[in-house]
Amino acid sequence: MSVSAVEVIRAKRDGSELTEEQIRWFLDAYTRGAVADEQASALLMAVFFRGMTPAELSVWTDAMIRSGRRLDLSSVPMPTVDKHSTGGVGDKISLPLCPLVAACGVAVPQLSGRGLGHTGGTLDKLESIPGIRTALSGDEFVAQLAEVGAVICAAGPDLAPADRKLYALRDVTGTVESIPLIASSIMSKKIAEGTSGLVLDVKFGSGAFMREVDRARELARTMVGLGDAHGVRTVALLTDMDTPLGRTAGNGLEIRETLEVLEGGGPADVVEITLALAREMLGLVGVDADPAEALRDGRAMDRWRTMVRAQGGDPDARLPVARHIEQVRAERDGVVERVDALAVGIAAWRLGAGRARKEDPVSAAAGVVLHVVQGDRVRAGQTLAELHADDAAHLESGREAFRSAIRVGDTAPQASPLVLERIAGA
Amino acid sequence: MSVSAVEVIRAKRDGSELTEEQIRWFLDAYTRGAVADEQASALLMAVFFRGMTPAELSVWTDAMIRSGRRLDLSSVPMPTVDKHSTGGVGDKISLPLCPLVAACGVAVPQLSGRGLGHTGGTLDKLESIPGIRTALSGDEFVAQLAEVGAVICAAGPDLAPADRKLYALRDVTGTVESIPLIASSIMSKKIAEGTSGLVLDVKFGSGAFMREVDRARELARTMVGLGDAHGVRTVALLTDMDTPLGRTAGNGLEIRETLEVLEGGGPADVVEITLALAREMLGLVGVDADPAEALRDGRAMDRWRTMVRAQGGDPDARLPVARHIEQVRAERDGVVERVDALAVGIAAWRLGAGRARKEDPVSAAAGVVLHVVQGDRVRAGQTLAELHADDAAHLESGREAFRSAIRVGDTAPQASPLVLERIAGA
Repeated sequence: MSVSAVEVIRAKRDGSELTEEQIRWFLDAYTRGAVADEQASALLMAVFFRGMTPAELSVWTDAMIRSGRRLDLSSVPMPTVDKHSTGGVGDKISLPLCPLVAACGVAVPQLSGRGLGHTGGTLDKLESIPGIRTALSGDEFVAQLAEVGAVICAAGPDLAPADRKLYALRDVTGTVESIPLIASSIMSKKIAEGTSGLVLDVKFGSGAFMREVDRARELARTMVGLGDAHGVRTVALLTDMDTPLGRTAGNGLEIRETLEVLEGGGPADVVEITLALAREMLGLVGVDADPAEALRDGRAMDRWRTMVRAQGGDPDARLPVARHIEQVRAERDGVVERVDALAVGIAAWRLGAGRARKEDPVSAAAGVVLHVVQGDRVRAGQTLAELHADDAAHLESGREAFRSAIRVGDTAPQASPLVLERIAGA
Repeated sequence: MSVSAVEVIRAKRDGSELTEEQIRWFLDAYTRGAVADEQASALLMAVFFRGMTPAELSVWTDAMIRSGRRLDLSSVPMPTVDKHSTGGVGDKISLPLCPLVAACGVAVPQLSGRGLGHTGGTLDKLESIPGIRTALSGDEFVAQLAEVGAVICAAGPDLAPADRKLYALRDVTGTVESIPLIASSIMSKKIAEGTSGLVLDVKFGSGAFMREVDRARELARTMVGLGDAHGVRTVALLTDMDTPLGRTAGNGLEIRETLEVLEGGGPADVVEITLALAREMLGLVGVDADPAEALRDGRAMDRWRTMVRAQGGDPDARLPVARHIEQVRAERDGVVERVDALAVGIAAWRLGAGRARKEDPVSAAAGVVLHVVQGDRVRAGQTLAELHADDAAHLESGREAFRSAIRVGDTAPQASPLVLERIAGA
């Protein structure tokens, strides 16, 4: 072979731009096992420090896509648009959004993931519905998409396998927090999935992966550029994740809230962001429909029920309820100055809704239900939140983590817009 | 465990100073196999970019020493001083230096290594002497040191095993060229070896590991600081490696040149640097002896013969001679403007004297003999060098590499001092 792993690592380390041949060779050899994990992690750390040029990143992402199969959605009779969120606390938006957009005539091929740490995963939430399957074959996925227009399931093993291997490596080598690596990981899967349009919900704030808005903006721009370069029309919204989205954080609890939204109710922030993303998705493929109406008239809920049934779930089944439910009460009169997304996310995780390692099981019933939002006036003794857990140990651990989640004081916080900015391609 | 590998990697990556507990835990866990290669290489790459503070480096080095056994040389009746060179082309200095210093009454516990790439290794050179053993047990090493005062052999497996493992990892992950990692690798072995004093020959120039003098100076200062911090009196000389040292590059060929020096002759530069290093070594332990006299009166040669015999070698055996010897001749009249160390080193390597991978064998006979040095006037047709190889393929490959080694032109080069600078502790 004409390329050596050490040469590629040293070139990146010393700030050279990698050639197309070097990148394709390295990622292919790594996926095949010809380049060792310790060489790949050294390159990833060098990328963390040196970054990637747009040309490098485009080839890198393309090589990840080509490590597997790019799905062909040409048999789907509707236009296709997907959505991806960088993840947050209480972020169940994909669940109402997917059937809502489908109800407006646009197919949503939603390949989702599981949660790790303080942010939940869409698949974990969906799986609290008794009977539902999230592991579909490629054929089942395309068939359901064509028929129902809505599908939420796990990515198959042949979708960007290089990313799967690299992500597992990044997780244990401290190389997750790199904008080009995050962008290529997300975009390789979304492009390989075959969607023709993509709306990104890039979050910033305490509960988000990117705390600083500048980093979130850079990530959003990088991903929009990658989508456009690969023929996927892409738009990003920068949204606030300083405080949780909606009133629930936890798998089954978020399904309950999803159903409220699909019934035309639900928390204002969840509805606002669901509609904002739906409008972007419809706009990308030029479909002129009002998603608010599809929520009001029940078409979105109908589509949800059809989707759940198509995946083997019972939309009328009772959702699991936690054995232990404890009230958290205000210690004084005042105003809710702060509901901290990170603290709520960690509490939900400790209560049993999340996992520390990817092998861990999650509880369908555990989590947090918020009874107040920032700016609410409260009286001493009033319930601020409920903690749900399956056993006393999780309850204890979650209670401890929740201690700093809600601050009651004297000063009403300034309201900040939920959607800060819209980023579209050139 | 209270420390996690990812936390340590992220701390270094983000520019925090690692705690003593973090460093000791990481290196111990890595040596035991509890931290994976891919995590260690990510940390090494982060160290490449972030460096180490003196406090971190001191703990890191100490942890490497404690990963194995620190030799006890208290049974040796003479003071002990060792020498280490960062390596260069034609750098056979350890071979005459060790018996020379021993002849002056100071024991030299020289644990050496093998060559890789264009620089030769002292053990490879020594092993061109028929019968000689370079693998001694710890007891044999100490016994010979006490009796002969001179021993040149390989380090045992329990000498800084963490360094052995880390070095192999650095070699394949592009993390060799980091001053703290180089300094801790060299110094952990030298400190563990038990010497009470150490003289470092830190080379700069085209044939050296550090091409720039500034980097070489920084490495020298870092190592001197580490030696002093661990109770080993340490001095460094910065020496020029832009042009080869002496007239030979190759294993048996350098033994021939060593014998010339020990006979009181030999190339002026080899003699100069041997004496400079010997004086530093004697000075470190306060022994007032003139090494030049020990060369002249044959005591150094006697000590060499005793040392070779003690290790099973025959000092009178004929050294191997290459089957193919080819002359390289001047194409024009002129002055030797340049003899490039790197090109000569690569030619010797290609001729068979060096190895590309550590499993490769080396030829005892192959190498380069220079007939001219920089500044010599030559006539067209005059022999500039001889290429020695065991077979035609190596000869061809070495001839190709040697093409750019010697430049004959019209301008005599400026002479530069061989020893540029002396660096001692505070």
